[in-house]
Amino acid sequence: MEEYIKIKVDILRDFTVKVFQRLGVPVEDAGISADILINADQRGIGSHGIQRLRRYVIELQTGSTKPTTNIEIIRETPNTVLLSGEDGIGFVVAYRAMQMVIEKALNNNVALAAVRDSNHYGIAGYYAMMALPHDLIGISLTNSRPSMAPTYGIDTILGTNPVAMAIPAGHERPVVLDMATSIVTAGKLELRKREGKRLPAKWAIDESGHPADDAAAVIDNILGKKGGGLLPLGGAGEEEGGHKGYGLSFMVDILCGVLSGSKFGADLYSVVDNIMENKVSHFFAAIKIAAFTEPARFRRSMDEYIRLLKNSRKKDGQERIYIHGEKEWELYTRQKDEVSIYHAVVDELREIGKELGVEAAF
Amino acid sequence: MEEYIKIKVDILRDFTVKVFQRLGVPVEDAGISADILINADQRGIGSHGIQRLRRYVIELQTGSTKPTTNIEIIRETPNTVLLSGEDGIGFVVAYRAMQMVIEKALNNNVALAAVRDSNHYGIAGYYAMMALPHDLIGISLTNSRPSMAPTYGIDTILGTNPVAMAIPAGHERPVVLDMATSIVTAGKLELRKREGKRLPAKWAIDESGHPADDAAAVIDNILGKKGGGLLPLGGAGEEEGGHKGYGLSFMVDILCGVLSGSKFGADLYSVVDNIMENKVSHFFAAIKIAAFTEPARFRRSMDEYIRLLKNSRKKDGQERIYIHGEKEWELYTRQKDEVSIYHAVVDELREIGKELGVEAAF
Repeated sequence: MEEYIKIKVDILRDFTVKVFQRLGVPVEDAGISADILINADQRGIGSHGIQRLRRYVIELQTGSTKPTTNIEIIRETPNTVLLSGEDGIGFVVAYRAMQMVIEKALNNNVALAAVRDSNHYGIAGYYAMMALPHDLIGISLTNSRPSMAPTYGIDTILGTNPVAMAIPAGHERPVVLDMATSIVTAGKLELRKREGKRLPAKWAIDESGHPADDAAAVIDNILGKKGGGLLPLGGAGEEEGGHKGYGLSFMVDILCGVLSGSKFGADLYSVVDNIMENKVSHFFAAIKIAAFTEPARFRRSMDEYIRLLKNSRKKDGQERIYIHGEKEWELYTRQKDEVSIYHAVVDELREIGKELGVEAAF
Repeated sequence: MEEYIKIKVDILRDFTVKVFQRLGVPVEDAGISADILINADQRGIGSHGIQRLRRYVIELQTGSTKPTTNIEIIRETPNTVLLSGEDGIGFVVAYRAMQMVIEKALNNNVALAAVRDSNHYGIAGYYAMMALPHDLIGISLTNSRPSMAPTYGIDTILGTNPVAMAIPAGHERPVVLDMATSIVTAGKLELRKREGKRLPAKWAIDESGHPADDAAAVIDNILGKKGGGLLPLGGAGEEEGGHKGYGLSFMVDILCGVLSGSKFGADLYSVVDNIMENKVSHFFAAIKIAAFTEPARFRRSMDEYIRLLKNSRKKDGQERIYIHGEKEWELYTRQKDEVSIYHAVVDELREIGKELGVEAAF
C-alpha cells in the first residue's frame, strides 16, 4: 500500500470547497479556506494542511466556528485596525485582515492589524506572503492553544505562537520565515506518535518538568492542561536560551491576545458545555519598502544576501545551506498541480465526504 | 582584593562624560552616551556597559566613529524615516532615531525608522524602553559584527543581531525582552575566557563546524573571520530549531542592513587601512496602544498575564519564574545610585583617565 496518495489540486480544492459549503460556508469563503489549507500541503507543511479538515468540520458543526464570517471593524485609523472575527473562519478572517493591512501600507507606508475572536488560521506564512507582490514586507503572528510552560515552570500557559515574515527578493525566491516559538510544533509530536517513535530529549517535558519521550502522553497532557508540553526554542532552563523562546512566544501573545483586548495565555482555550471554545487572536503588519529604499535596489541586495549565504562554505558532510522558505518553494513547485496526501488522511477525507454527501473524486 | 568595586553613578557619569568630551564629543551627546553605557551596568548587563569604554575611545581616536553626530534625514514620511548616522556615535544616533519614532507614533499610531551608517549602540533594550512612558510598545533591532554561521555552514556571516521589545504594564514592571538571536553573546565567551572556563557544548563551533569549548580560540576565529563562531538560538542543525535562530538573525539584518540600503552580513565589518570600519544599521518601531485598546485596560491585562506566569507552578527545585527584564529591573533598583564594576575594568577606566587627563574620582 502506498503511504502517500497523489491527488490533483483542482479535484482536492473542489472537494474541500463543497465540504465547507455543505456546512453553510459561502462559496467565496470556502474557496479562501480550501486554498490556504491545500497550499500548506503543497508546501510540505502537512501538519497544517488538509489533514485538519476534520477539526474544522467539527468546529463548524458544534458552532464554535460560525460558517458566515462577519468581520467587525472595532477601531480604525489610516494605518491601523482592530478587527473582530466574530468567531468566524480563521482563514477568512486572517485573509481579509491582511488585505486591509496591505492596502493601508500601500497608502501609508506601514500598517498593523490586531484581530480578535478568530479561529485557527492555518500556516502563518500564507498571510505574510500575501504582501510579496506589492513590494511590501509582510508579517503574520497568531496566538494558539496553550502547549508550553514558561522557563522553570510546568503549567501549560503559552502557545507555540508562530512568527512569520515574508521578504521579496529579485531573481531569487522570496525569503519566508515561518517558525513556531517552540522547538517543534504539536504536529511533529503527532507525527512521532503515528510512527510509534520516541521523542528527542529536547522537544518536550512531562507534567513534572522532566524530559518526555512519549509523544502520546505529552499530547494528552497538553489537551488536558495537566502540565508540561512542548519546550520553547532554546530548550529547558536558560543555558541554551530557553527563556528566549519563552519570551518570543510571550511577545506574540501580547501583540495578538493582549493588544486586541481579548483572551491570552491559558485562557485562550476553554471548554464550555463540553464544547472547546477558542478565542484566537492574530496580528499582521506590512512595511512598504519604497518608504526606505528603492524596491529594485532592495531586491538586488536580497539576491546578493541569499547568494552570500547559499554559496558560503558548508560543514563537513553537508551539501547545502538553506534559505528560509526555500524547501517549501521547491515542494510547492513540484506540487503545483498534484499534491501528496498521507493515506490515512485520504481515508478520512473520504469519510467526511460520505458523511456530508460530497463526492470524493480521488 | 575585591572582585567588584562600587562606584557612585554620579561620579562614574561625570568621568565618562569628560572622557567623551576630551575626544571632541559635545556635552549633550557625551551625556546620552554615558547614561546608556552606565544603564547597562546598573541593569547587570556589564558586557555592554562601561567596560566597552576603551573600544569607543579607540573608535573615536582612529576616526572610525566621528565625535560630532550629524544625523541626516534621507527619506521621511509622517510615520517612517530613513536616517544616516553619518558614522557618528551609535548611542546618539539611536537615541535621536527613537525620539523621532516615538513622536511619529504618538501622532500616527505606528512609526518605523531604519538607520544606516551608525556604530555599536550598546544595549538594544534601552531604546525600546524609551517608548514606555508614552503608552507605546517599543521595538529596537540592530545588526552587529559577523560572529555566527548559517545552519550547516561554517563561514562567519551573521551577527548576534538582537531583538528588543518593551511593553508597558500597570502595577507590575514593564516587560523588556532583549535577546541576542545567538544562544549567547560574544560577551559571555569573553567572560569564560577571563575566568579560564570551558564553554558548554552548545554555545559555539570551531572553524570546521564542530563544537568548540575554547573561548579564546572561538573569539580569535570571529575576529579573524576564520569561520565558525557562536551558534544560533536553537543550536547546530535543525532538530532543536537552529534554523530558527539563524532565521531571526537574518530577519534582523534584512530590516537593518538591507532595508536601510547599507551593508549587511559579512560586509558589515571590514578592515580598511588597518582601521576597523563598521557599517552598523538599526531598526526602531513604536506602536501606539490606544490605536487598538484602552491603555488602562492593556496595562491591567499585562499585570494579569505577568501574575499568571509568575504564580504558575514551578518545576522541582525551582523557586521562581521570571518575566523578561525582571532580573534587570531588580538590579537597576539596587544599583540606582551606586554600581558594581569589575576591578580590571576599573583599572582600565583609570588608565583611560590618565591618558586623556580626566580625573577618575573613584
